[in-house]
Amino acid sequence: KTENPISLSPPTKRSTASVVRAEANQPINPVIRKEEAKVVDSVLVAELSKPLTAYCRCWRSGTFPLCDGSHVKHNKATGDNVGPLLVKKQE
Amino acid sequence: KTENPISLSPPTKRSTASVVRAEANQPINPVIRKEEAKVVDSVLVAELSKPLTAYCRCWRSGTFPLCDGSHVKHNKATGDNVGPLLVKKQE
Ligand code: FES
Ligand code: FES
Repeated sequence: KTENPISLSPPTKRSTASVVRAEANQPINPVIRKEEAKVVDSVLVAELSKPLTAYCRCWRSGTFPLCDGSHVKHNKATGDNVGPLLVKKQE
Repeated sequence: KTENPISLSPPTKRSTASVVRAEANQPINPVIRKEEAKVVDSVLVAELSKPLTAYCRCWRSGTFPLCDGSHVKHNKATGDNVGPLLVKKQE
């Protein structure tokens, strides 16, 4: 039985010199729904309308919880390497 | 047509005084797959075995891309308010 169906594309490698780590004890969400104690979202797969939907994990999207590509700017500005979670209805 | 089927539970509110924002220009991923230029994961919904699967958005999980509850420690340590994306096969 498949417990955790994660499919990984072959990752793009980068040089060790470009690796930038985050400060361990900093918050990572600047502005999204800060009035909530914990920002949790739910995706109902039966209601997904598109074959692929990208969900933000960088906390910089203007359409959070969806990814709007803002991770690109964040990664460039900070040297980070974060990206979205892709939810796929078909292979 | 439902473009973005996100269902939100009634959020837990917190006092304005407890709101902590992240530094805008810091990386958010300390250690996960730093050898990759961009960490992107895919979920194939047809292969989900459980009714509910939680995916990490805090970049602190020991079982990334799955959530292992580490967001609780991160939020407590930093005053942040991040949490997982829940993918649900049934309502
Ligand atoms: S905008 Fe946040 S992961 Fe793409
Ligand atoms: S461990 Fe990262 S969101 Fe739960």
